[in-house]
Amino acid sequence: MTDANQTPAYTRPVVRLKPKAEARAIRHGFPWVYADELVTDRRTQALAPGALAVLEDGDRRPLGLVTVNGKSKIICRVLDRDPEAVIDAAWFARRLTRALDMRARLFAQPFYRLVHAEADGLPGVVIDRFGDVAVVQPNAAWAEAHLEALVAALREVTGVSTVIKNGTGRSRSLEGLVEETAVLVGGIDAPIPVLMNGATYMADVLGGQKTGLFFDQRPNHAFAASLARGATVLDMFSHVGGFALAALAGGATSALAVDASAPALALATKGAEASGVADRFSTRQGDAFEVLEALGTEGARFDLVICDPPAFAPAKPALEAGLRAYERIARLAAPLVAPGGYIVLCSCSHAADLSAFRNACGRGIGRGGRRGQLIHTGFAGPDHPLLPQLAESGYLKSLVFRLD
Amino acid sequence: MTDANQTPAYTRPVVRLKPKAEARAIRHGFPWVYADELVTDRRTQALAPGALAVLEDGDRRPLGLVTVNGKSKIICRVLDRDPEAVIDAAWFARRLTRALDMRARLFAQPFYRLVHAEADGLPGVVIDRFGDVAVVQPNAAWAEAHLEALVAALREVTGVSTVIKNGTGRSRSLEGLVEETAVLVGGIDAPIPVLMNGATYMADVLGGQKTGLFFDQRPNHAFAASLARGATVLDMFSHVGGFALAALAGGATSALAVDASAPALALATKGAEASGVADRFSTRQGDAFEVLEALGTEGARFDLVICDPPAFAPAKPALEAGLRAYERIARLAAPLVAPGGYIVLCSCSHAADLSAFRNACGRGIGRGGRRGQLIHTGFAGPDHPLLPQLAESGYLKSLVFRLD
Repeated sequence: MTDANQTPAYTRPVVRLKPKAEARAIRHGFPWVYADELVTDRRTQALAPGALAVLEDGDRRPLGLVTVNGKSKIICRVLDRDPEAVIDAAWFARRLTRALDMRARLFAQPFYRLVHAEADGLPGVVIDRFGDVAVVQPNAAWAEAHLEALVAALREVTGVSTVIKNGTGRSRSLEGLVEETAVLVGGIDAPIPVLMNGATYMADVLGGQKTGLFFDQRPNHAFAASLARGATVLDMFSHVGGFALAALAGGATSALAVDASAPALALATKGAEASGVADRFSTRQGDAFEVLEALGTEGARFDLVICDPPAFAPAKPALEAGLRAYERIARLAAPLVAPGGYIVLCSCSHAADLSAFRNACGRGIGRGGRRGQLIHTGFAGPDHPLLPQLAESGYLKSLVFRLD
Repeated sequence: MTDANQTPAYTRPVVRLKPKAEARAIRHGFPWVYADELVTDRRTQALAPGALAVLEDGDRRPLGLVTVNGKSKIICRVLDRDPEAVIDAAWFARRLTRALDMRARLFAQPFYRLVHAEADGLPGVVIDRFGDVAVVQPNAAWAEAHLEALVAALREVTGVSTVIKNGTGRSRSLEGLVEETAVLVGGIDAPIPVLMNGATYMADVLGGQKTGLFFDQRPNHAFAASLARGATVLDMFSHVGGFALAALAGGATSALAVDASAPALALATKGAEASGVADRFSTRQGDAFEVLEALGTEGARFDLVICDPPAFAPAKPALEAGLRAYERIARLAAPLVAPGGYIVLCSCSHAADLSAFRNACGRGIGRGGRRGQLIHTGFAGPDHPLLPQLAESGYLKSLVFRLD
């Protein structure tokens, strides 16, 4: 469809928006082109997943450099406004420096999400930093193809000595990528101590869930910890003890961490030891719903209860069932809260927006026989920035209620 | 309409929901009855504004004790689930103790909103605490009628030595109340120093706007301060220097506070002196839009710009114009942000929800020629709790963008 007489002599293939597709959003920073907005002629269809191309609008004006993946509903991701940009280590270094500047300003110690995909200008790329160790998730085909330049830039900009590739993200299969985890540079032989909110967490970046630790909850851990002085704490779905250890560092008298995963609880216990709070920390392995019901039967009461479950409504088809699950969590957990105590209810479901999640929690608390005030609404920390155009997709919500 | 044979012999008048009105929401904690949901017979119409009454559902089952005001669209406000509750100093003391417990847990020093109306079980009542001084806003007729018991309980529970009545709220006129400000107990003769986020603010609780200081922005001041190390700061609509003084306490190299009010700026300057940061603090009096344009013309640049304007969209009829005003603020302010700097955009408009406000800010930043990431979304602090049923009405939003 392209005509050499009308098209600048780009060294790269050209893809083009359909005549009626809206180019304005792209010009204003929207980072994606959906498959139905693009002219998918044979040349476009023939592009290898992750290929770079110049995106033009319907009038053949260049919009920028994109990566194309015909296997994905998001057929193009904008990499650069400059259609001639060269994607090399220097290009990556500029993006990483921008990302690092913001984190270095916000965090006293080098433990944070360094790159949060589109919002940090690296579509589909997630990088978590644990001191001298970086864990890279190249969840888009273009990033897999340019991994060497990315890693070189990462080492240069941050000075990390170890780089792990974590290729287990669900989104990789949407991009046609295989699962693969590997140590690309350096090496590690033990969980990494991570300093946050006055506690020391143990992150198993090779064997753990996702990248071994969830940085996104840091400000919500901190808010819960501000309520924890002198409190007894129940941390449901504790993983490596995110809320429990922060609460103990904040002065909780005891914390019980509950998780289905024995390895996660073992890391939580190691974290409690490293934090000097092991004498106030205990664990219970089991299914969260069963443990909540058992604790209710036992008549257990806690001053602060936290429920941070996995995503019950990751996508729209799961929304109704997911909201019912959140309501059930709230209904089972609310009776465990001592009068005048607090409950923290979290959702990391993209599909459940703040209103829907809040309503589910309110219903659950009411059906649990309790009433309360909502005192805090938190989201993911600032090392998880959002493009304003995609801000509706903010996935993490943390609601804090005081119950009568 | 009530029938003595069927109704318990309440000492108070009875008001009743219409047969088809939904009583379930009230039973689940919704605190209001709208005028069109109530049987407004002659007896109900004859009740004095602020009168206490027993609310029954359409089947004459009691729902609780309410205050009735036929002049308000919110014709009943639920005071207690017990229809026989006695509203005296002991009743107020229980509500105030509940409110105080939460604040005392969260705040090391006694400067906070002590009572945030419905969510603290005192409909229409706002109480701000400044150490030994409390400022009461009785913005509903029932509270005006029971002010003596409320103040007695307030003194007993908190130990404050001075109580001010601030009767200037807009909502008072909806309740048929007149404007009146008075010193009810004790006395003050100077602005009160208020300690927040490492800064000392000066609150003029007799002459200032609202109750002299806005506690609601405290966590948003703190987040902005976390970005301020080594930064030059512009605080638009500064009032008494909320963001500017916190930023200077957080290590900003300079802060310029802009406000239309000379008395507010004088208090900001006094606060800067009390905070030991006067050498880094300056003020500029003027209309914010004019000052933003002038600074743009001057080519001024700041590492951190904050715009915390008054409510441009307090109610639905003002929504469109309000969103345009927010967009204009963002468009004028974004060019003043140095590359890689930050902008904090706030709204205290009930009518502009988070999505609408965020979109207006995003458009404004784009039209100001800039692009950015959204790194933080904040609301009012936890001393401004919400009933879950009214949480959609959360008015304060604070968005923090990093701009390229």
